[in-house]
Amino acid sequence: MRTSKILTLVAALFTLLASASAADKIPAYSKADLTAADKLRERALADPSAYQLITSLTTEVGPRPAGSAGDKAAVAWALREMQRLGFANVRAMEVVVPHWVRGEAEFSVLSPWPQSMPTLALGGSVGTPPEGVEAEALMVKDLEALKALPSGAVKDRIVFFDNRMERTRDGSGYGRAVTVRVSGPSAAAALGAQGVVIRSIGTSDERFAHTGALRYVAEAPRIPAVAISNPDADALVRQFESGKSVRVRIRSSSRELAQANSANVIGEIAGTDRGSEIVILAAHLDSWDPGVGAIDDGAGVAIMMTVAKLINGLDQKPRRTIRVVLFANEEFGTSGSRAYVEGLHGEAERHVLGFEADFGAGPVWRLSSRVNPAQIPAVDQIFRALGPLKLERGNNEAGGGADLDGLARLGMPILDPGLDGTRYFDVHHTVNDTLAKVDPAALRQAVAAFSVSVWLGAQYPGGWERVATQKTSRR
Amino acid sequence: MRTSKILTLVAALFTLLASASAADKIPAYSKADLTAADKLRERALADPSAYQLITSLTTEVGPRPAGSAGDKAAVAWALREMQRLGFANVRAMEVVVPHWVRGEAEFSVLSPWPQSMPTLALGGSVGTPPEGVEAEALMVKDLEALKALPSGAVKDRIVFFDNRMERTRDGSGYGRAVTVRVSGPSAAAALGAQGVVIRSIGTSDERFAHTGALRYVAEAPRIPAVAISNPDADALVRQFESGKSVRVRIRSSSRELAQANSANVIGEIAGTDRGSEIVILAAHLDSWDPGVGAIDDGAGVAIMMTVAKLINGLDQKPRRTIRVVLFANEEFGTSGSRAYVEGLHGEAERHVLGFEADFGAGPVWRLSSRVNPAQIPAVDQIFRALGPLKLERGNNEAGGGADLDGLARLGMPILDPGLDGTRYFDVHHTVNDTLAKVDPAALRQAVAAFSVSVWLGAQYPGGWERVATQKTSRR
Repeated sequence: MRTSKILTLVAALFTLLASASAADKIPAYSKADLTAADKLRERALADPSAYQLITSLTTEVGPRPAGSAGDKAAVAWALREMQRLGFANVRAMEVVVPHWVRGEAEFSVLSPWPQSMPTLALGGSVGTPPEGVEAEALMVKDLEALKALPSGAVKDRIVFFDNRMERTRDGSGYGRAVTVRVSGPSAAAALGAQGVVIRSIGTSDERFAHTGALRYVAEAPRIPAVAISNPDADALVRQFESGKSVRVRIRSSSRELAQANSANVIGEIAGTDRGSEIVILAAHLDSWDPGVGAIDDGAGVAIMMTVAKLINGLDQKPRRTIRVVLFANEEFGTSGSRAYVEGLHGEAERHVLGFEADFGAGPVWRLSSRVNPAQIPAVDQIFRALGPLKLERGNNEAGGGADLDGLARLGMPILDPGLDGTRYFDVHHTVNDTLAKVDPAALRQAVAAFSVSVWLGAQYPGGWERVATQKTSRR
Repeated sequence: MRTSKILTLVAALFTLLASASAADKIPAYSKADLTAADKLRERALADPSAYQLITSLTTEVGPRPAGSAGDKAAVAWALREMQRLGFANVRAMEVVVPHWVRGEAEFSVLSPWPQSMPTLALGGSVGTPPEGVEAEALMVKDLEALKALPSGAVKDRIVFFDNRMERTRDGSGYGRAVTVRVSGPSAAAALGAQGVVIRSIGTSDERFAHTGALRYVAEAPRIPAVAISNPDADALVRQFESGKSVRVRIRSSSRELAQANSANVIGEIAGTDRGSEIVILAAHLDSWDPGVGAIDDGAGVAIMMTVAKLINGLDQKPRRTIRVVLFANEEFGTSGSRAYVEGLHGEAERHVLGFEADFGAGPVWRLSSRVNPAQIPAVDQIFRALGPLKLERGNNEAGGGADLDGLARLGMPILDPGLDGTRYFDVHHTVNDTLAKVDPAALRQAVAAFSVSVWLGAQYPGGWERVATQKTSRR
């Protein structure tokens, strides 16, 4: 019996040693850090700041497309609010941005059944002559269908892309559908089309057209491109189904002005013993012009500013420096984040961890990442600390967002508290992007999820190693 | 024992006589009529015609405000479709209508925080000079609040009416809120206002302005009046809450043209032994211009045409004549129904029962009426025949609709299968009134409820007596 008792003790000792060795490999958070995380979560769930910030930004500034007066007002607003919240090193980093103006757009079916349909020019579209561009329309599903057409079929036509975006929680439906908006105009122009109209890249049946950037290629003529809402696209399909020739007209007074000055607005919560390491919190200050940019990306701006405010309000200071960057012009070429990366001068590796909020006003439904595989257990620990929020555990293939793309390509790890995108594309890039689309409770939950993740990202007792492979952003 | 047997027989005889006398007071439907009602209900629930008719009207005609090219196209469409469905006596009754054109409208806040808000002129509004009308705004809740202001407070201001409409199933919220739209402009003008902007008479938080007719009074100057959406009204309230002076500008190119010709389109299913009595089925062919008039009132047009088609498809012919009247210009002064009543030349009493469908695309949720109290038991019988549709039993104070108002004032009884208005005012009078807002299953249910009610109204074995008192319509 003695021998067996000794064996049991030895076995217990081995177990203890093995777990201590695992703890060595995966440095554990201190009790103080985890207690502070709980405190942040509870405070966030009760804090009205994020909703107040979106209210203020959308009411006092409103639309803020790159280069506009609203863009300048947004920069001033962000500097003022960061100062008010007590951030350190508040500053504007000048960024040169394109200045495209929408003007007015019209889309009309002339035959078989004349109807006018509310429309928005795609961002960056050239305008038309005052009388518009009028042609027989050609309906295709997507770029593949366009390319499969017989030679000459597209010449002189206005191409109607009729691909309906799928509703998903993670935004993957957008990734699949958006190619038509970005590349459709030049693809059609290369085949001789005079203009393009797309079924909006959006999920609602409300009669709102969705704008968003197109990208012209150098090899094709620049032709005007507009979007119509889903119900109007359905009506246009019915005109085609009549079997008669469908003639349409596009009019647009869009035009590009001289480049303008804007700024990335930056503020920090200074770190302590690892203060030279930066945890970057990204959102974008610009918006498209038809709405007031409440969910895109007033919500991201408000979430990130509130996270930093809440961490700044703790007795304990963060180990790493938390840097909020509100980027200029995400929507029309990511000028702000490109300028940021260009301005790093070898300091990219100081950015040890990135967060981006550019997918609406919450709630957060899962935690994903793209970290060095050695730190996946650290993400697991953060996920456990998020327990009361009942998130799902995502994978390690998070894309981050458009504004962190450059830093991610340089190997920066990403933590991604995933915002629920189920209804995001009902409103995204429409006139309907207003404060009414923000649910204050969902927003507070998102702030809670980000606060805990950012805090534990900043406190991680180990090092955030670089990520070997990079992927492009999902949006 | 013999005596008691005789007494029992005598008692049974009395019971029989008493019930025969009750049947005399409340004539009962024949088994054949009730069987046909069941058949109609089942056919209606499987019939795609109503949805096809709305699809055709909204796709091939679209917007059809009084006096427009769409209005003329709608008259041609209705004549063609009634012929195709095999109605008798299909005809257009000429109606002179006003011809107001919307033009373009803009509403901008100039200070404290400049923002432009999507807007629609109220129907009938005068336009502004090209530079617009610019003034300090004054916010009031409603007409009562306006009248309670100190003398001179309104002079030279633009008045903002900020009364939010309540969502109800029966439309009563609209009745309470709409006074501001109809009478607000003249009430403000009488106190010296330069213009009016109203919070839309609508229930949604989507960014759609709701139009609808105003009514100028002769005693006040005609001032321009526009509507903004609920989210924009909320944003405007926040500008006022800043405590600063709120300056706004209204621009509108609305104008009234010369009167135009339109028509009530009429078709019948001829009755048999009571064929000189008319059961009138009312809907309106016109629509407001921003949307395509799917729910207002393409749905009513489609319901009534499908009801008549289904009854026409029975082996049994109706006793009374069923007359479908698609009225001209309900929206901007009920020209069509006024002309109809003026053209009756003493034949008003031939209209023994009326139905109106002008409250969306279903479902029907209750059965109300305004009949002579002697016929309430008949309505009860009809309600029992509707049993499988599980409706609620309404009262005998139904308002009918705007187009039956004139006939109801002349004593015509009304049967009102009540369309569910819970979401109707999300879309009513907006650009968002499209086919996407029609649920085919709810529409078929509505056709079923109307079919049974209309059929049994036409077959009623007794007489539909006149109604002594009249009320005004609820909308």
